[in-house]
Amino acid sequence: MDSQFVRQEIYQLIETLYPICRSITGDGFRESMQILKEHIPLELHEVPTGTQVFDWTVPREWNIRDAYIKSAAGEKVVDFQKSNLHILNYSVPYQGKVKSAELKEHLFSLPEHEDWIPYRTSYYKENWGFCLTQKMLDSLSDEEYDVFIDSSLEDGFLTYGEFFIKGELEDEFLISCHSCHPSLCNDNLSGMGVATYLAKHLSQKKNRYSYRFLFIPGTIGSITWLSLNEDKISKIKHGLVMACVGDSGKMHYKKTRRGHAEIDRAVTHVLKHSGDDYEIMEFSPYGYDERQYSSPGFNLAVGNLSRTPHGRFQEYHTSADNLDFVKAEKLADSYFKYLAIINVVENNKKYLNTNPKGEPQLGKRGLYSTVGGRKDASDYEMSLLWVLNLSDGEHSLLDIAERSGIPFSSIHNAANALLDCNLLEKVPG
Amino acid sequence: MDSQFVRQEIYQLIETLYPICRSITGDGFRESMQILKEHIPLELHEVPTGTQVFDWTVPREWNIRDAYIKSAAGEKVVDFQKSNLHILNYSVPYQGKVKSAELKEHLFSLPEHEDWIPYRTSYYKENWGFCLTQKMLDSLSDEEYDVFIDSSLEDGFLTYGEFFIKGELEDEFLISCHSCHPSLCNDNLSGMGVATYLAKHLSQKKNRYSYRFLFIPGTIGSITWLSLNEDKISKIKHGLVMACVGDSGKMHYKKTRRGHAEIDRAVTHVLKHSGDDYEIMEFSPYGYDERQYSSPGFNLAVGNLSRTPHGRFQEYHTSADNLDFVKAEKLADSYFKYLAIINVVENNKKYLNTNPKGEPQLGKRGLYSTVGGRKDASDYEMSLLWVLNLSDGEHSLLDIAERSGIPFSSIHNAANALLDCNLLEKVPG
Amino acid sequence: MDSQFVRQEIYQLIETLYPICRSITGDGFRESMQILKEHIPLELHEVPTGTQVFDWTVPREWNIRDAYIKSAAGEKVVDFQKSNLHILNYSVPYQGKVKSAELKEHLFSLPEHEDWIPYRTSYYKENWGFCLTQKMLDSLSDEEYDVFIDSSLEDGFLTYGEFFIKGELEDEFLISCHSCHPSLCNDNLSGMGVATYLAKHLSQKKNRYSYRFLFIPGTIGSITWLSLNEDKISKIKHGLVMACVGDSGKMHYKKTRRGHAEIDRAVTHVLKHSGDDYEIMEFSPYGYDERQYSSPGFNLAVGNLSRTPHGRFQEYHTSADNLDFVKAEKLADSYFKYLAIINVVENNKKYLNTNPKGEPQLGKRGLYSTVGGRKDASDYEMSLLWVLNLSDGEHSLLDIAERSGIPFSSIHNAANALLDCNLLEKVPG
Repeated sequence: MDSQFVRQEIYQLIETLYPICRSITGDGFRESMQILKEHIPLELHEVPTGTQVFDWTVPREWNIRDAYIKSAAGEKVVDFQKSNLHILNYSVPYQGKVKSAELKEHLFSLPEHEDWIPYRTSYYKENWGFCLTQKMLDSLSDEEYDVFIDSSLEDGFLTYGEFFIKGELEDEFLISCHSCHPSLCNDNLSGMGVATYLAKHLSQKKNRYSYRFLFIPGTIGSITWLSLNEDKISKIKHGLVMACVGDSGKMHYKKTRRGHAEIDRAVTHVLKHSGDDYEIMEFSPYGYDERQYSSPGFNLAVGNLSRTPHGRFQEYHTSADNLDFVKAEKLADSYFKYLAIINVVENNKKYLNTNPKGEPQLGKRGLYSTVGGRKDASDYEMSLLWVLNLSDGEHSLLDIAERSGIPFSSIHNAANALLDCNLLEKVPG
Repeated sequence: MDSQFVRQEIYQLIETLYPICRSITGDGFRESMQILKEHIPLELHEVPTGTQVFDWTVPREWNIRDAYIKSAAGEKVVDFQKSNLHILNYSVPYQGKVKSAELKEHLFSLPEHEDWIPYRTSYYKENWGFCLTQKMLDSLSDEEYDVFIDSSLEDGFLTYGEFFIKGELEDEFLISCHSCHPSLCNDNLSGMGVATYLAKHLSQKKNRYSYRFLFIPGTIGSITWLSLNEDKISKIKHGLVMACVGDSGKMHYKKTRRGHAEIDRAVTHVLKHSGDDYEIMEFSPYGYDERQYSSPGFNLAVGNLSRTPHGRFQEYHTSADNLDFVKAEKLADSYFKYLAIINVVENNKKYLNTNPKGEPQLGKRGLYSTVGGRKDASDYEMSLLWVLNLSDGEHSLLDIAERSGIPFSSIHNAANALLDCNLLEKVPG
Repeated sequence: MDSQFVRQEIYQLIETLYPICRSITGDGFRESMQILKEHIPLELHEVPTGTQVFDWTVPREWNIRDAYIKSAAGEKVVDFQKSNLHILNYSVPYQGKVKSAELKEHLFSLPEHEDWIPYRTSYYKENWGFCLTQKMLDSLSDEEYDVFIDSSLEDGFLTYGEFFIKGELEDEFLISCHSCHPSLCNDNLSGMGVATYLAKHLSQKKNRYSYRFLFIPGTIGSITWLSLNEDKISKIKHGLVMACVGDSGKMHYKKTRRGHAEIDRAVTHVLKHSGDDYEIMEFSPYGYDERQYSSPGFNLAVGNLSRTPHGRFQEYHTSADNLDFVKAEKLADSYFKYLAIINVVENNKKYLNTNPKGEPQLGKRGLYSTVGGRKDASDYEMSLLWVLNLSDGEHSLLDIAERSGIPFSSIHNAANALLDCNLLEKVPG
């Protein structure tokens, strides 16, 4: 897919998903998965309320139809229909007159950004509430307000989407996106969009690894998946948690708990040679679902690759994380960087130099300049020499790329040329 | 003990010890140990002259009563009664008229500090001599002087003090202070003072490790102790040589010969999080008694924690290392830093996360905020998450503190909270 | 040999070798070896054309007597007799009139240095050609030229010189110099000159290691030697490829493929303590014959020690790499640095402290100051203490020099003094 096409497609998908009020359960999440199914053959799983998943229990399903705060004059001063961020996500149903002082205990605003609505949740403690701009809050002068929340919190299901692409190997590459946020674009619609198009692309080609895409509610979703799929976990060899991939910031990679996994090295290599600024961060047990994949009982090689990481942009978890905040070209850039990383992991094999004693004579095979005496070898000649020198069965192509400082793609090309002349052979197994 | 109290007490102990003329043997050393016995139940050992201790022999016991140089006019131009630094420590008895030229071969001064008396010794070569200020030296104009040294160098004993505090474990933490210097405050009265109060404090509480405090003459003392206690040496798991802990300089830690021992990491961690400037130095086989503990036949994990290290302050081994040079508040600061280090070593255990698959649900145990969506976890939440994530039986609390960058005390508190909810359990053994 | 003598001798040898037209085979190479034989008892080997050496075949022998390009007016505009660089090295015989346009396809010049003749070769593809200055090229205005190349390319031999100096051990130190370049001074006459004098020096003394000096044609020579001497290869424990050791630049060391071999550490140590600027470079599979010694089938501990490395000076492979470009004092400096490195490797042994428990009493053996109390130990005392502390059978003298920061020569002296008092003993085997 060319860059221009990718830009438009991913951005349009995000536009479609934007208005829906998602949560960790409920119809908003289901509806979003149905939209993704128009692009990839997503399998939807429904896990009943009450299912025990490790230390957690699948919660009741939450749905919301309407909610508002009405002034004494009958004006809706806060209205869910205008922004689904206005409702404290997972608010229990409520209806009644509330004194201003009591009401304010149920209101959340951002004094430092007086025009922005914050996003707040109360999944695991029954509560009701509204999120509103500081300006709205400051204008509440009545003694009493009419509060109306038409929601339900009942036994039902936790929904998640899964797409498995079988590869040559049973070993898996996991890409996990939380998909539970309402109208927030960078976190998490950008991840859902890029992951969908990545899945679409990979499903149309032959891959060495199998790929598993998860579109799940944050925390409870990954815990649920891990709990219901313990038999599959040992097959996950590499993984990336994807979120916040549409803003204008540079790429940030948070390493796996292991710290030097192949995925850590592949991401670092691609970012280092990308020509763009980037930052590599050490693992920490805070963040997105890598927290669960990296728990000590699993310790999976799953990192987190974002543009600006969660919590580090002002718009994070506010109404300002909107369709203007994500950029089509940044989504495409993230998409191509993920692809480049996958390309490294797919092709990171070890080879054996079939003429390990001395250099083979490259000139007679047309791989080396015939006029001698010049100052430098060409870049291509250097790639050939590095691959030959380190192809002792111990070094993978990524090892060679790292040690030589040459981009993986050049090393990979050189290896292919050497394979073609039988100067290299595959390491069996 | 509060800081104010510690300051006064340690400083007063140093004041009491200051006037005594100590050496590596003799009554000055014994008298000093008796003063320490008023604070801690020190056991005194007397090792006879001639005892073979590895490559060394316990020397004859030295005592001194008086010494002076008298001018032709009968004036005592150098007088031991005015400062015990005036005598070359271990001077043999001498009495007689000495020509000025010959006398000068027995005199030691400091041209670069003309008002200071240097401290010099001749333990292992029979000699007599005087130390005096450069001004005194320059004023000696007589042709001949009366020299009088009323000392004795006879078979006797080498004395040292030892205090052992039995802990839960047989494994030991060694604190070693050389105590052989005459009227010098930072080197070594400051160490004797801080160590005495540290011993007093530890003897009043329950400890995991056993603690052994040694108040010994430098070099020959540690060699003697090691030689007579070879059966105990393998129990020493951690150790610190204490000296020069009362001056105004920043803390300096010289690492053990091993370089990455637990004590090295504990000291580094405490200094790093102290908020004060500090310096970590590599091991070198020069310095104080860590030289002996680190000899290749023992290679003990014994570092050296000082303020300004030996030889790095101008007042070192001169009369200017006096009661003004050490500060009560610096003595107290050193005391509390030693305590913090001991606290790390005492509590540096490994635990097992009892819910290692995914995170446990902290919210339902009151350990996590119930309103979700905020940018950052609290510091306390981060400590909990780090302890859970790394408590796989492999990582100690210090490992976790180091990797997370969080102070040990916070990590320790978090571990205790998690133990209380049974989310953590002790690693057996 | 004193420095002044070394300067003159090496430089004079280079002057003698300079006019000869060498190549990878032929009489120019043989004649050069005969000149070296006047200094060292070099053994000459003649390997027949067609001999298979790994992936390569020994080429036909090339000799040249004369070559020129004559203008229509009968003037020799390019004349081999004026500089042997004028001929494309390994040019096949040719005679005839050549149109200007066709001729220019056989001409090589350097537009960026219009007065310099480049050095170009065509060993493995039959071709003829001339190298000339840009000015010469620009002045060629005739339509047709007379080309004459009186060379021969016939079955014969590849010649190389070898000098083996038997040491106490069968383990070998390899010094390898390519010797195939015509009138180029820094690359490679400087290496031939310094290596010859190094060999001469080593042959006159008793050595622990055996030394093997190779004077070989580049690439094909090392491949040939390796192929014909596979039984000897495992004995090579250390090696240096020597070239470009006469220019005015600082020393550059390219590490072995292993990266932390003893030779890497010895060279780094000597350069670090030399007082001169230097640069340590990582291994790369480009350069001189270390490419062959470092091929994965051998992976020998062979580094490359130069002044300015190949390709990094403008004069490289041009007529400007002449007798003015190399300096007698730089040749001598390189010689003495090589000697210092050999001295480290020769004496880098492990010892055992015979009194490993505590320090031995150095004072009674006259190795330590008898007056105590001074600030610092002397440098000599520090060397003694370091050697005693680390001589546990695990640390070599180079390990001790590296850890202490003290020059190897001081550590070596201290070890000898301790051996003399039986405070140290040799580790058997």
